[in-house]
Amino acid sequence: MNPSMKIKIAIFGGSGYGGSELLRILLFHPNAEIVLVTANESAGKLVGEVHKNLFGLTDLRFETAPDDLSTLDADLAFFALPHGQAISLAPKLPKNIKIIDLSGDFRIDDAEIFQKYYKLEKSDIQSEFVYGLTETNREKVKTADKIANPGCFATATLLALSPLVAKNLISGKVIVDAKTGSSGSGVKPAPNTHHPQRMNSFYAYKPFTHQHVPEIEQCLRSVGSFETDLVFMTHSLPVSRGIFASCYAELNEEISVAELKAIYQDFYQDSFFVRLTDGSPDINWVKNTNFCDIAVNVQGKQVVVFSAIDNLVKGAAGQAVQNMNLMFGLDEKTGLILVGSNP
Amino acid sequence: MNPSMKIKIAIFGGSGYGGSELLRILLFHPNAEIVLVTANESAGKLVGEVHKNLFGLTDLRFETAPDDLSTLDADLAFFALPHGQAISLAPKLPKNIKIIDLSGDFRIDDAEIFQKYYKLEKSDIQSEFVYGLTETNREKVKTADKIANPGCFATATLLALSPLVAKNLISGKVIVDAKTGSSGSGVKPAPNTHHPQRMNSFYAYKPFTHQHVPEIEQCLRSVGSFETDLVFMTHSLPVSRGIFASCYAELNEEISVAELKAIYQDFYQDSFFVRLTDGSPDINWVKNTNFCDIAVNVQGKQVVVFSAIDNLVKGAAGQAVQNMNLMFGLDEKTGLILVGSNP
Amino acid sequence: MNPSMKIKIAIFGGSGYGGSELLRILLFHPNAEIVLVTANESAGKLVGEVHKNLFGLTDLRFETAPDDLSTLDADLAFFALPHGQAISLAPKLPKNIKIIDLSGDFRIDDAEIFQKYYKLEKSDIQSEFVYGLTETNREKVKTADKIANPGCFATATLLALSPLVAKNLISGKVIVDAKTGSSGSGVKPAPNTHHPQRMNSFYAYKPFTHQHVPEIEQCLRSVGSFETDLVFMTHSLPVSRGIFASCYAELNEEISVAELKAIYQDFYQDSFFVRLTDGSPDINWVKNTNFCDIAVNVQGKQVVVFSAIDNLVKGAAGQAVQNMNLMFGLDEKTGLILVGSNP
Amino acid sequence: MNPSMKIKIAIFGGSGYGGSELLRILLFHPNAEIVLVTANESAGKLVGEVHKNLFGLTDLRFETAPDDLSTLDADLAFFALPHGQAISLAPKLPKNIKIIDLSGDFRIDDAEIFQKYYKLEKSDIQSEFVYGLTETNREKVKTADKIANPGCFATATLLALSPLVAKNLISGKVIVDAKTGSSGSGVKPAPNTHHPQRMNSFYAYKPFTHQHVPEIEQCLRSVGSFETDLVFMTHSLPVSRGIFASCYAELNEEISVAELKAIYQDFYQDSFFVRLTDGSPDINWVKNTNFCDIAVNVQGKQVVVFSAIDNLVKGAAGQAVQNMNLMFGLDEKTGLILVGSNP
Repeated sequence: MNPSMKIKIAIFGGSGYGGSELLRILLFHPNAEIVLVTANESAGKLVGEVHKNLFGLTDLRFETAPDDLSTLDADLAFFALPHGQAISLAPKLPKNIKIIDLSGDFRIDDAEIFQKYYKLEKSDIQSEFVYGLTETNREKVKTADKIANPGCFATATLLALSPLVAKNLISGKVIVDAKTGSSGSGVKPAPNTHHPQRMNSFYAYKPFTHQHVPEIEQCLRSVGSFETDLVFMTHSLPVSRGIFASCYAELNEEISVAELKAIYQDFYQDSFFVRLTDGSPDINWVKNTNFCDIAVNVQGKQVVVFSAIDNLVKGAAGQAVQNMNLMFGLDEKTGLILVGSNP
Repeated sequence: MNPSMKIKIAIFGGSGYGGSELLRILLFHPNAEIVLVTANESAGKLVGEVHKNLFGLTDLRFETAPDDLSTLDADLAFFALPHGQAISLAPKLPKNIKIIDLSGDFRIDDAEIFQKYYKLEKSDIQSEFVYGLTETNREKVKTADKIANPGCFATATLLALSPLVAKNLISGKVIVDAKTGSSGSGVKPAPNTHHPQRMNSFYAYKPFTHQHVPEIEQCLRSVGSFETDLVFMTHSLPVSRGIFASCYAELNEEISVAELKAIYQDFYQDSFFVRLTDGSPDINWVKNTNFCDIAVNVQGKQVVVFSAIDNLVKGAAGQAVQNMNLMFGLDEKTGLILVGSNP
Repeated sequence: MNPSMKIKIAIFGGSGYGGSELLRILLFHPNAEIVLVTANESAGKLVGEVHKNLFGLTDLRFETAPDDLSTLDADLAFFALPHGQAISLAPKLPKNIKIIDLSGDFRIDDAEIFQKYYKLEKSDIQSEFVYGLTETNREKVKTADKIANPGCFATATLLALSPLVAKNLISGKVIVDAKTGSSGSGVKPAPNTHHPQRMNSFYAYKPFTHQHVPEIEQCLRSVGSFETDLVFMTHSLPVSRGIFASCYAELNEEISVAELKAIYQDFYQDSFFVRLTDGSPDINWVKNTNFCDIAVNVQGKQVVVFSAIDNLVKGAAGQAVQNMNLMFGLDEKTGLILVGSNP
Repeated sequence: MNPSMKIKIAIFGGSGYGGSELLRILLFHPNAEIVLVTANESAGKLVGEVHKNLFGLTDLRFETAPDDLSTLDADLAFFALPHGQAISLAPKLPKNIKIIDLSGDFRIDDAEIFQKYYKLEKSDIQSEFVYGLTETNREKVKTADKIANPGCFATATLLALSPLVAKNLISGKVIVDAKTGSSGSGVKPAPNTHHPQRMNSFYAYKPFTHQHVPEIEQCLRSVGSFETDLVFMTHSLPVSRGIFASCYAELNEEISVAELKAIYQDFYQDSFFVRLTDGSPDINWVKNTNFCDIAVNVQGKQVVVFSAIDNLVKGAAGQAVQNMNLMFGLDEKTGLILVGSNP
């Protein structure tokens, strides 16, 4: 791609946190030109009125989604909509417009499982979508026209476990104890994100039934042999941003921490956004960034892998742009050096 | 009062934070017997299902408010309802039932001001209500049948300023920079209490127009001469509980900090719940308690008084029970030794 | 015990968080009389100067620990000291003084394991100590003279797992993913409790090596057959108080959630401080209280048990007083109805 | 300046929060080349080991400060050291090296006041320093060789008040109620930044005596006539980052909010980093950025101006780089489009 060329981008659903982060990144991306950003309730408003972090930084305004999408002039559409909307909208776009969807609408291959977890019928268009976990699916992403961007929990878990599965290092049950910040519940106020209570809370939710379970199992099976149970548990953290996954498994044979770290380093040698640390990562060091920090720990055959991401960046908008970069022949880091802060 | 006697209590509006705190206190008050607690949306539920802090501690259930209040068998009714409801309900109670209202419905004497701030017509019954800032109005509270319990900001501000006004120590403009925790916005989720945003926020709201302004001015005029402007500004803190008021005024003549502290100590000598500290109080040390911590600081003629309370206790339910104690001839501390914790 | 009798109590180590909570509870305990509270650095200071939550509530002052303990006139000594100090002090007390130690000095039976985790030689006196997990060891506690009070992580984990082990319901590996608030690190500021960083942090620490591992294994073996590995992982939460343990195990045979909950209810039928909830407990509802809230969840043979406690109360000072009550013939709830707050 | 030219930069004191933020900004500044960053205790370590937000983003290492500074090859030195160190080091640098100091060592003109607040003798070199509040001193900064970078509280306060003073709109006492996040206390753990306590705290500190008072008064006198008292009060917020100043004054004559806002817009028309908002700014929308958000509110002659900054960016490192840009002929925004995030 010509370094000065611009990708014409339409964002459907710009008022949520996913849309907000897409805007934060794409407004300053050297190859992005946002031609449309929709938000029906905020139509006509300046982006910087709704997302006050962007106040003074752009003259862009939200628009209502056009009734007729067939004439949309864009190279790429991002869908940052509630689950169940993109599946109706995607077929209405001109064929030449590439799509990156941030919802769960196109992540699940199996119709029955999709029905069970999302209460929706599968659509023909779903088979055109490539699962966009960049680090394990990079080559397919490069040639894809349509991307199902991974869920936030799935991203943290899959980046932690993929080397173990791909290298056939573990067997038996895998347990993932995952924790998320409150922005994972979205921009709409609700009892579980009510500040007076949430600030002192920690609790589990949706035990055994989170919709990211089938997504994780499906992806693990695509990187290697994964026949066993996944026990996946989600918890709520009293922070705004961040996912931390503690992943427990049993090694087929004893491996030292140093050897295992070397295996991870090798697996992620081309993956700038995966950083291997010692002991434990900390969500504080990935907040606002596209990094996934990972640490491995071993005792005998017991292994625990910790991973930390920002749920809205590597877990959503950041990875979506990373995929966009690859789809359009750019370096995957382009526009994504979002430097975290200390503290 | 016979120490083993029980006050039969009806609580109207038990599902909000004010009602929740009334229940926390009254369920363990040696002279309280709750005969009714209403919460229309939660009618039939155990109190401990709704206020999970009370799970396992009581078999009490919420009820719908009875249509006919004239036969209510109780000694005392607390109203912990949204503004504008108690003013309709109060006249329907039997005359022998004492009332403590936690809303703003009965705090304002002037009909015009009441109309301006609360958008309601004054009612005849309002003249029967005594303003329940216990420390400055203790004797009237003892003989009152109906109490208008003070607002949370008003309580913090008035306890800080009353000695200065009562002793005629200041003149000119008084500026109060007040800050509140998120529970002050109530139990209902809203954008300003959405955890992802609130946890990193600090901002001002309702500049110059908070409804506690006329309440504060009216009460200050009742304790002494207060002819000047009150500049009152409210801000939102990213904590669950607590109000902190920084009150700035100008002394008529220079007084040392020690002398001024002695004046406060004298003014509050019979007030167990006012604690005088040095330098500054901290909301951390009053949270969950009925204390108001106050510190005075002086430079030349400039004085600043800091006060800290728990907005839901001394700023609402705790002071309400303190008033109840006095109305029924009990020691005002009864059931109110709510010991704070460190940290 | 005569209900009006007083237990004469000496607290060694009153300036830390454990000591602070002992004071919060014991100062208002109807059968407690504190005759000595030591804090060498704060000797001479009012308790309420150091623990500002207690300001105005007591005239008690800290003292230096007496050189000669042999003449101490007390019925009971609490040790709330850093690990390694009680083991030297305990033998110096008169034989008639009962002891409750909040450190790890007397929890481990095996000399080798004790040496490995605590870097200390075992002492003869250790065999006189009874492990004070009240709910599983109640009868022994009643007749004990010396109590090794459990660790905070151990308490949360053991109360979650004991019914499964005692009823022989599980086999194979048990994984405990435990999370603690910052007060668990003590009163002394350190980089990991530095507010600017901690408030946005979540991370794991001491993977596989926490000193509560052998304590948990030893206690589980005392309630039933526990032959398998314990994989125990500790994490840091950005809250002040609370421990949440997610405990994963495999059932010998499928049991419904309802059946399992009934088993827990039966196991804890005499245990007021264990509350069984559905779905998940929340640290918000146990903070400042002596409750342990537990929920069980099952899918096939996979079981996860969640438990939540306040690390300083049920995880330390509260359980210590619960044990004291039993040792002196009192109802175990005496002085421990510490009502939590909403929010 | 040639757009591809690089400014050779030495940073003295790179391990604190000020140094950390200088590194976050300068490592990605198109015209910056860091030739030296000192941190005696961390000498030899990778910058990304100490500031983990930068892990994987730079190979730069900390060094010990050289004994002989006379041969330092650099265009610019930043001092991000504790107060009192730069005053000794600055004279030792070669004359051609420009200096930007982030401490208070060179901000105060008056020797007596400097002695009173900083306990240090004035040095001859101090007269060479220009006060670096960019928005009010832009022309002097452009030609300066040495910059005394403003304090964080001073920046927030001065940007709020300068238009009022410069346009001669107010008279009489000015009261500033200022609040800061915990990172303002620096990187070293201390009791006041101990997480268990700080997370629920709000309190005032250093009443009337903060060292930024003379700095603010001096600067206000440089932009206009400011003869009156400044009452300045600092408070601690339980957030990591952010300063919020509520500035109260009395207008000489009534002005509408709209008129006053227009005056501010005019005053700051060339100041990209000052954003005028309505009602109130929020520290949440300036965190991690170089913006200062300001809102004015008026009632009669009473005016309150609210300002919000990130204490470590516009209040320290960001403004320092803004000054650097001007000193070297660059656009002041260069490298400073640090986009905040939502939430």
